[in-house]
Amino acid sequence: MPLLTSPPLQSQVHANAQAIDAWVDTLVDEFAATAVERDRQGGTAQAERDRLRQSNLLKLVIPAQYGGLGADWETAMRITRRFAQVDSSIAHLFSYQHLGVVAPQVFGNPEQAAHYYSQTAQHNWFWCNGFNPLDRRVILTPDGAGFRINGTKSFCSGSVDSDVIPLSTVQEGVEGFRIAIVPTQREGVEVQGDWNNMGQRQTDSGNIRFSNVWVAADEILAPPAGNEVFRTFRSCLTQITFTNIYLGVAQGAFEAARSYTRSQTRAWPGSKVESATEDPYILQHYGEMAIALEAATLLTDRATALVQAAWEKGYALTAEERGECAVAIATAKAFVTQNGLALVNKIFDVMGTRATSADYGFDRYWRNLRTFTLHDPVDYKIRAVGNWALNRELPTPDFYG
Amino acid sequence: MPLLTSPPLQSQVHANAQAIDAWVDTLVDEFAATAVERDRQGGTAQAERDRLRQSNLLKLVIPAQYGGLGADWETAMRITRRFAQVDSSIAHLFSYQHLGVVAPQVFGNPEQAAHYYSQTAQHNWFWCNGFNPLDRRVILTPDGAGFRINGTKSFCSGSVDSDVIPLSTVQEGVEGFRIAIVPTQREGVEVQGDWNNMGQRQTDSGNIRFSNVWVAADEILAPPAGNEVFRTFRSCLTQITFTNIYLGVAQGAFEAARSYTRSQTRAWPGSKVESATEDPYILQHYGEMAIALEAATLLTDRATALVQAAWEKGYALTAEERGECAVAIATAKAFVTQNGLALVNKIFDVMGTRATSADYGFDRYWRNLRTFTLHDPVDYKIRAVGNWALNRELPTPDFYG
Amino acid sequence: MPLLTSPPLQSQVHANAQAIDAWVDTLVDEFAATAVERDRQGGTAQAERDRLRQSNLLKLVIPAQYGGLGADWETAMRITRRFAQVDSSIAHLFSYQHLGVVAPQVFGNPEQAAHYYSQTAQHNWFWCNGFNPLDRRVILTPDGAGFRINGTKSFCSGSVDSDVIPLSTVQEGVEGFRIAIVPTQREGVEVQGDWNNMGQRQTDSGNIRFSNVWVAADEILAPPAGNEVFRTFRSCLTQITFTNIYLGVAQGAFEAARSYTRSQTRAWPGSKVESATEDPYILQHYGEMAIALEAATLLTDRATALVQAAWEKGYALTAEERGECAVAIATAKAFVTQNGLALVNKIFDVMGTRATSADYGFDRYWRNLRTFTLHDPVDYKIRAVGNWALNRELPTPDFYG
Amino acid sequence: MPLLTSPPLQSQVHANAQAIDAWVDTLVDEFAATAVERDRQGGTAQAERDRLRQSNLLKLVIPAQYGGLGADWETAMRITRRFAQVDSSIAHLFSYQHLGVVAPQVFGNPEQAAHYYSQTAQHNWFWCNGFNPLDRRVILTPDGAGFRINGTKSFCSGSVDSDVIPLSTVQEGVEGFRIAIVPTQREGVEVQGDWNNMGQRQTDSGNIRFSNVWVAADEILAPPAGNEVFRTFRSCLTQITFTNIYLGVAQGAFEAARSYTRSQTRAWPGSKVESATEDPYILQHYGEMAIALEAATLLTDRATALVQAAWEKGYALTAEERGECAVAIATAKAFVTQNGLALVNKIFDVMGTRATSADYGFDRYWRNLRTFTLHDPVDYKIRAVGNWALNRELPTPDFYG
Repeated sequence: MPLLTSPPLQSQVHANAQAIDAWVDTLVDEFAATAVERDRQGGTAQAERDRLRQSNLLKLVIPAQYGGLGADWETAMRITRRFAQVDSSIAHLFSYQHLGVVAPQVFGNPEQAAHYYSQTAQHNWFWCNGFNPLDRRVILTPDGAGFRINGTKSFCSGSVDSDVIPLSTVQEGVEGFRIAIVPTQREGVEVQGDWNNMGQRQTDSGNIRFSNVWVAADEILAPPAGNEVFRTFRSCLTQITFTNIYLGVAQGAFEAARSYTRSQTRAWPGSKVESATEDPYILQHYGEMAIALEAATLLTDRATALVQAAWEKGYALTAEERGECAVAIATAKAFVTQNGLALVNKIFDVMGTRATSADYGFDRYWRNLRTFTLHDPVDYKIRAVGNWALNRELPTPDFYG
Repeated sequence: MPLLTSPPLQSQVHANAQAIDAWVDTLVDEFAATAVERDRQGGTAQAERDRLRQSNLLKLVIPAQYGGLGADWETAMRITRRFAQVDSSIAHLFSYQHLGVVAPQVFGNPEQAAHYYSQTAQHNWFWCNGFNPLDRRVILTPDGAGFRINGTKSFCSGSVDSDVIPLSTVQEGVEGFRIAIVPTQREGVEVQGDWNNMGQRQTDSGNIRFSNVWVAADEILAPPAGNEVFRTFRSCLTQITFTNIYLGVAQGAFEAARSYTRSQTRAWPGSKVESATEDPYILQHYGEMAIALEAATLLTDRATALVQAAWEKGYALTAEERGECAVAIATAKAFVTQNGLALVNKIFDVMGTRATSADYGFDRYWRNLRTFTLHDPVDYKIRAVGNWALNRELPTPDFYG
Repeated sequence: MPLLTSPPLQSQVHANAQAIDAWVDTLVDEFAATAVERDRQGGTAQAERDRLRQSNLLKLVIPAQYGGLGADWETAMRITRRFAQVDSSIAHLFSYQHLGVVAPQVFGNPEQAAHYYSQTAQHNWFWCNGFNPLDRRVILTPDGAGFRINGTKSFCSGSVDSDVIPLSTVQEGVEGFRIAIVPTQREGVEVQGDWNNMGQRQTDSGNIRFSNVWVAADEILAPPAGNEVFRTFRSCLTQITFTNIYLGVAQGAFEAARSYTRSQTRAWPGSKVESATEDPYILQHYGEMAIALEAATLLTDRATALVQAAWEKGYALTAEERGECAVAIATAKAFVTQNGLALVNKIFDVMGTRATSADYGFDRYWRNLRTFTLHDPVDYKIRAVGNWALNRELPTPDFYG
Repeated sequence: MPLLTSPPLQSQVHANAQAIDAWVDTLVDEFAATAVERDRQGGTAQAERDRLRQSNLLKLVIPAQYGGLGADWETAMRITRRFAQVDSSIAHLFSYQHLGVVAPQVFGNPEQAAHYYSQTAQHNWFWCNGFNPLDRRVILTPDGAGFRINGTKSFCSGSVDSDVIPLSTVQEGVEGFRIAIVPTQREGVEVQGDWNNMGQRQTDSGNIRFSNVWVAADEILAPPAGNEVFRTFRSCLTQITFTNIYLGVAQGAFEAARSYTRSQTRAWPGSKVESATEDPYILQHYGEMAIALEAATLLTDRATALVQAAWEKGYALTAEERGECAVAIATAKAFVTQNGLALVNKIFDVMGTRATSADYGFDRYWRNLRTFTLHDPVDYKIRAVGNWALNRELPTPDFYG
């Protein structure tokens, strides 16, 4: 598995790191400035997608030998979290770039991984998502030297303006999914652009329709023997990514509330304090939020570090290591989900009634987090943690666990 | 206080009750049909205001001898709650009609009460709100036989398309507020129509600007001796009204979720049940929501009954009776606030991710409740209940307690 | 069903009510005075059982025509709750008297009901409990004109010093249980007196061993045709009884805490208030506790009223009426369980560290409530409420629902 | 500050570490075997104190150059936590050894530190606690070359069988406390042995009476210039110690519950699962408990590491570093307190009613944690965190923060 064993030289990494941070700082400011307005509009974040293309950050996790920035998952998650603090739609689009570009490494053979890493780096492709495993309507049919794809896939985040679609398809007589990599521009692909949702409004998570789309044989990912465990790892990547985005939303909401309370909130007449910042209940709420955020951050950082460690094992990853990583992720995800939702609701109690003006758009934190945390039920994440805690049974490796 | 001692004959009430219920049924259906779209639009619910005018319901709490329907507060709250189940903006507008039309009875003398009841019944006036006690910018200045009013009032719910504005003003040298009743059409009154909020979007709770507006002496409410306690009762009416609206929102959200789960939600693959309606965690969430709603309803009904009983005492109302009523309201309001907010967030867990589509507008329950429950801080309601429970100290009668 | 159709004359009831209240007042004071010490000792509350015998209260729910006091369930629950406020073990013993003495009416035919009511009134029998449905070890075997009973029954509350044991037994070839009424003094009955528990320490809820105990044919309750629904009602009586006891424990804990905070708790140095009774967080905790208690009380009162209404229907009780009553009880029980447990833990936060002295025995509230609320899992009560709320499915009538 | 700059050589530490772990393993097993019975008895854990003396662990944190084991705070906390998992009274006694023996280093000058470290190591002294800052009754009066001490100190944990009492005293004309180190055997010292509490029953946290007790001048700790910040650090040590003990109690409760559920708990009849370990709600509870424990552990470990880092700075510790450390401790302590209390209550829901038998003593987890977490109000810890999070104000360095 040479893909995982030749990291960029240390000096390269440092040079990259500075350039990356500079871009991230710039983009965070830009995205923040327009986030409220763009949330209102919904639709495609075209300008922001263009900026991400210009930033080179689409190559973030592509190994250096393929022309990428060679960042590890902890770096990728840190950046994703920062974007999520100001705009979780952008963080969502950005994160599916990484989840897409590594799909060939996870599900395919080393040649496929190398091919898609290189091509993506060279052409600066923007990947979207076509993996929704609950939607089995896209059918793969052999056709001569290749295949034809027909059907519609839902919840294809980042589909509009994308270059590549990693797609789960169903082939008659084959168990599970077969994963295809399809250029968005290919004939027969129709991105519907029909996403209209209460939250995550600029993620373009709508439908893509495939009408007799040709797929070459080597565009179907071919998992080699020996990666039986590693090929189940993508759901861990997905879940840790979402966890980091959820955390970013909560952190962003907290900072926005803090800034507002300090500058705008007036002491309640019955409180007998001079400033809202001295109100005993407002201090209590901030204390509770800060405690929850600190715990959420530690849990998420721990799980992220385990993901990186598991990733570095590549095909050597054992089922037990994968399972323990999945438990750590589920632990963090459940905690962040529940405490994050409490926080994005509670910020209003420390800001007061004027903070509900549409000018501020403070409701977007709740709408975004409420929407995105429904990706899969938190109840079954908690159950999975409980099943490990009580019975030492590892989570079933599937598209969610 | 004859105003309070000659209720409509029983038979009249029954006839009224049937007509009222028929209208309410009709209006609830109409409002429900367009609620999602109108929430998106915001602005003025003109068609719905027109229908309320046609329905005769603007006269709901006006005593029969003045041409009203003579309904008690329990009836008014029941209807308000039903509107709130489908559209809390309409419930909000509707409730300020009653809170406005009784203002002269609460703050003024019997003649003023009789005058405004009669005129409202006769002209089918729609009242709005101009009482925001945290905004002391509207100044009352003596001018000949009357007064002039200058300044801006914020949070004037129902201001657009209103006929009458009950208004709290500040007069130099006079402690507290002086309450004026001002026709919206009078010269110098400018309804700004500038409400744009994350929730309660069709309440037109924006600013009204008063530029040298003439007010006659008898348009200033003149509280007679003997109503020192009763004149503090309007905040009880306001608070019980809001409590009923909050409850209605939660009830509406519950019913919407129930309908969705039963018809749309699919069993989670990992749940090993055939239908989402058998999922152990979905059943648990429904159980928890139903328990909270039942408790919330009992608390609200109890407080509403106490409000009616207190109202019937009129000027004979004692400070202790008023205080115990206020504690019961605060108890209900705090419970409904906290449990209602939890519910409007939790409904998504029992519906699943597709329920976040903008088509359903299910986020409006949270946006409306989150917005409206910030009217005054729940923390200080809980404290007031605690101060009674521990120290037997009654809440201070002010504009919030 | 004449048993249920001739209530005591109204005047009798009033005379009884006064005598009952006087006794209850006296006993509450007596039980309170020794509760901490008796909790420490555990074992049998012999003196208190003697006082209950003297008080005539063992006849509380026995209809007047059989020599009883003819009290309804709302009265019985009110008294049970008062005992529970000061000593939940006594309340427990006392409540099984009523649950036992009505067993023949519920499970047997009218003659058996009349017989046991009369005999209990005449001999002032104290009933205990032998119904634990999870323990199927007691076997009923036909023997000539009667039966023999062998085996051990666990969780027989009130067994020591009891006069009568209502007992669920298993007979080969008979589905469900057969209910026997066995005098405690009968040959072969060995009350083990082996209860030693962390809570409810004076309930003598230990084992009874039956060694070839003779039971006459008419000591086996014989449910007549027509009472198929009513015969499932005892679990409703049990569950509403427990709910009232749980509520009483919470109410007692609240009052004890209140008294302590007002007289003993010192202001925390960092609080900047002069008295603990002004501490913002202590007031908040009292507010939260008072709100929860008010809701708990309304839910419990409502369910208790439904129980009485259902009881009065007797054999005419329908499955749906019984089911709705069971849902109301489950709603109250789940709420009281969860909020009561929170309360008996939280009282320490408003009392402070010195309140943990063994002299006060304030931990007994938690120990008693924690123990007793485990009777059956609250999770399945909540699920039952959810199944009704979502699916309109009534709880299965069994020994718990 | 040489005391803090010459740590034991690395090899020494490793040799010590093995010996320490062996002793800890042994003692944990011994303490666990008798914990339930000793909880019942209360009083002095004499045999366990003797074993601690034999184990050499009383020298745990004494630097190697003074004959100690030279362990850092992370090691000390790890061991304390392990003791707390099986017996939080022993953990309590053990922890005050370290909090006592470092008092001269914190409050005194280097010579005093060296003296007490050396003497303790040489004589294997067992320290207790005499610091209760809310009790200002012990008066220090100059008398010739030394002082006399009079008065009573409460909450003196570990007083019975102790060798040394570090004591806060009040001297007329001196602000704050003066700290004396008093041999327990000195004339005039009367350990009352009067601790009788609902929890932490074997901590001997009763009163010590001082009757004209002679104290030499150098037994009064004399803080040198330059340690103004460091001398406020003991409350950080105390608070992190308690946090670790609370966490240990919760961890112990979890493991006890897990063992019981797996071996004893029966599936609930209505659950339709074959084993309690598959019950959806039991799995949920375990998941929630495990998630909370994981977060609690990460928060506590982080705070413990910060304590060690701050400790190593010695007199160079800045007010800001101290404050940030205090915030991290408060964060962990509040989280562990609230979630720990929830857990020690919830374990019964996953064990069932038979787990309330006094044989198991499972209530001791709640009694111990409930008692010990009242040391100072969690509300003010949360407020302190909130004041930092909102206002960036550091906690006031006092005996609690």
